[in-house]
Amino acid sequence: MEKLWMKNLRDITPYVPGEQSKEKDIVKLNANENPYPPSPKAVKAIKDFNCDRLRFYPNANATPLKKAIADFYGVEAENVFLGNGSDDVLAVAFQALFNSELPIAYPDLTYSFYPVWCDLFGIKYKTYPVGDDFRINVEDYKEKNGGVIIPNPNAPTSLGEGREFVEKLMEYNADSIVIIDEAYVDFGGYSSVELTKKYENLLVTGTFSKSRSLAGLRIGFAIGSKTLVSVLEAVKNSYNSYTVDSISIEAGVASMLDREYFESTCNKIIATRKRLTDELLSLGFKVLDSQTNFVFVTSDTLSMKDMFEYLKTKKVFIRYFSLERIENYVRITVGTDDEINRLLAEIKEYIGK
Amino acid sequence: MEKLWMKNLRDITPYVPGEQSKEKDIVKLNANENPYPPSPKAVKAIKDFNCDRLRFYPNANATPLKKAIADFYGVEAENVFLGNGSDDVLAVAFQALFNSELPIAYPDLTYSFYPVWCDLFGIKYKTYPVGDDFRINVEDYKEKNGGVIIPNPNAPTSLGEGREFVEKLMEYNADSIVIIDEAYVDFGGYSSVELTKKYENLLVTGTFSKSRSLAGLRIGFAIGSKTLVSVLEAVKNSYNSYTVDSISIEAGVASMLDREYFESTCNKIIATRKRLTDELLSLGFKVLDSQTNFVFVTSDTLSMKDMFEYLKTKKVFIRYFSLERIENYVRITVGTDDEINRLLAEIKEYIGK
Repeated sequence: MEKLWMKNLRDITPYVPGEQSKEKDIVKLNANENPYPPSPKAVKAIKDFNCDRLRFYPNANATPLKKAIADFYGVEAENVFLGNGSDDVLAVAFQALFNSELPIAYPDLTYSFYPVWCDLFGIKYKTYPVGDDFRINVEDYKEKNGGVIIPNPNAPTSLGEGREFVEKLMEYNADSIVIIDEAYVDFGGYSSVELTKKYENLLVTGTFSKSRSLAGLRIGFAIGSKTLVSVLEAVKNSYNSYTVDSISIEAGVASMLDREYFESTCNKIIATRKRLTDELLSLGFKVLDSQTNFVFVTSDTLSMKDMFEYLKTKKVFIRYFSLERIENYVRITVGTDDEINRLLAEIKEYIGK
Repeated sequence: MEKLWMKNLRDITPYVPGEQSKEKDIVKLNANENPYPPSPKAVKAIKDFNCDRLRFYPNANATPLKKAIADFYGVEAENVFLGNGSDDVLAVAFQALFNSELPIAYPDLTYSFYPVWCDLFGIKYKTYPVGDDFRINVEDYKEKNGGVIIPNPNAPTSLGEGREFVEKLMEYNADSIVIIDEAYVDFGGYSSVELTKKYENLLVTGTFSKSRSLAGLRIGFAIGSKTLVSVLEAVKNSYNSYTVDSISIEAGVASMLDREYFESTCNKIIATRKRLTDELLSLGFKVLDSQTNFVFVTSDTLSMKDMFEYLKTKKVFIRYFSLERIENYVRITVGTDDEINRLLAEIKEYIGK
């Protein structure tokens, strides 16, 4: 029998986080994690951290980290917002900036959390199908809306758009707030951060979880006009004053300052991605032209779901989405060269080459 | 001129976090932080952490930490919910459990974040004045409501209530969800965790920021029935899958396992609190009977605001609230014996004793 207090429980369909295998000797190419460790300077910052300080609350404004990010991108610290991973940043941004009766607009194939936040915060939304080539059609975003969110590059398609696309998007949406989600931009995409100086209604989000190998620490950020950032800060400070912990602040600063390591690991991933793409093409697969740390792959003759299941039995984990339009695609994270060699060997075994 | 997109910005009055002084040689008794460092075992867990693992996302369920907390409190891991500090836990709980058209109920003198969350999430609330002795009158909470939140012990009053109070509260609120916020319970208060087995509609929240000296890491938790915890998990997983980072999970586990250190530092604070209380009483102050790591102090003859300002000039920082009913009170965190000696010396200097 349902008790009376149960009617006050929020009715939410739980999102179930992906399983993390505890097995050894696996090749984990299913979560778009970076195959290289974080910057040795970030590791040193953690090892050198004076843990006695943990009895104090963190710097509530996380000022040193905002400053390091601002310096890297050539903006001011007041243009930087921080959160507990970019999911936290985006969730705050949805609450703070999509406060409209009109539906917000985003592509049909995209990050699966967008509709989840809309449901949680009671935001209406409308999705616009990407083309048959999986590209986003900027003309779709001329329609009046309550805001726009576009991941660039997009996931799971891996495709990126350039400055011309974003300028058009901003032209069509002078009356809306536009968020560009740049989780994957550091692997060869176009970053719109420079355009935040031109468009006061543009917010760009980023993360330390992909290109900076710090998924385990939870650091996300947004860059935009002081108008937008101040509203994000007001909502965040109405929720939780201290979202970035003291160790993450130090590690994040060290990571941002180590530009050389950052560029060298990103370049290694880009080089491995090219080799992986070429090999898959030569094996008869179709591979989209990725600007991310993963490739989106299909075949005219093979079932990608079957291949995904087969690779799992060989302890090679890639990602399969049982979703309309992409039911014969897999997403493969770009690992180390060794991991990609093992993946390719198993795929060759599977297709009998 | 206001631009059209500006109407979509959420209009929130920003909460301004308290200032953290960067000066050296200060006595910081204004944020209820623990004067002792975290458990050496927690520090060792951080120092030994394999930072290469940071390239992976954390365990999304933070299972090892849930298990350690469950073992400590004699419940199951499925009865434990985790968040990025107890503010995050409480914010999720407000969203998840106070989904009613009726106002929620809480005391007028209490944690200042409650009305902020109500405003952010559109929850109605009604406050019930505490008595002239600052005690909460349980009979007030007979009135029909959309939920109840009571901090026990309460802040900034420092007063705690026992099992009888909570049992009555639950009796009067069989149709509501009741949250007991136990941020300060480990310094001598009564914990209602045992009652979560009896009342499926009772949630108890706790934090690693006070008694476990880990404010810098951001770990909060809640304990309750599987019914309540599963709704918290659903909302949390609709917001951000990974709220507790990998290092915090390990440090939190080590801290929970080190019961001896935990008890010895709590007991030291309780002993220092008694000495501080006795000394202040002998100097003519009035001091409430604290069950927390702070004391709430007033005087019939002195202006507490003036004393607060004076102590600031001496680099001794305590907390003054410019709020109705408590405009002549100060809140003083229990520091080390040395810190309390310095505080008392400055107070004696001020009052000319």
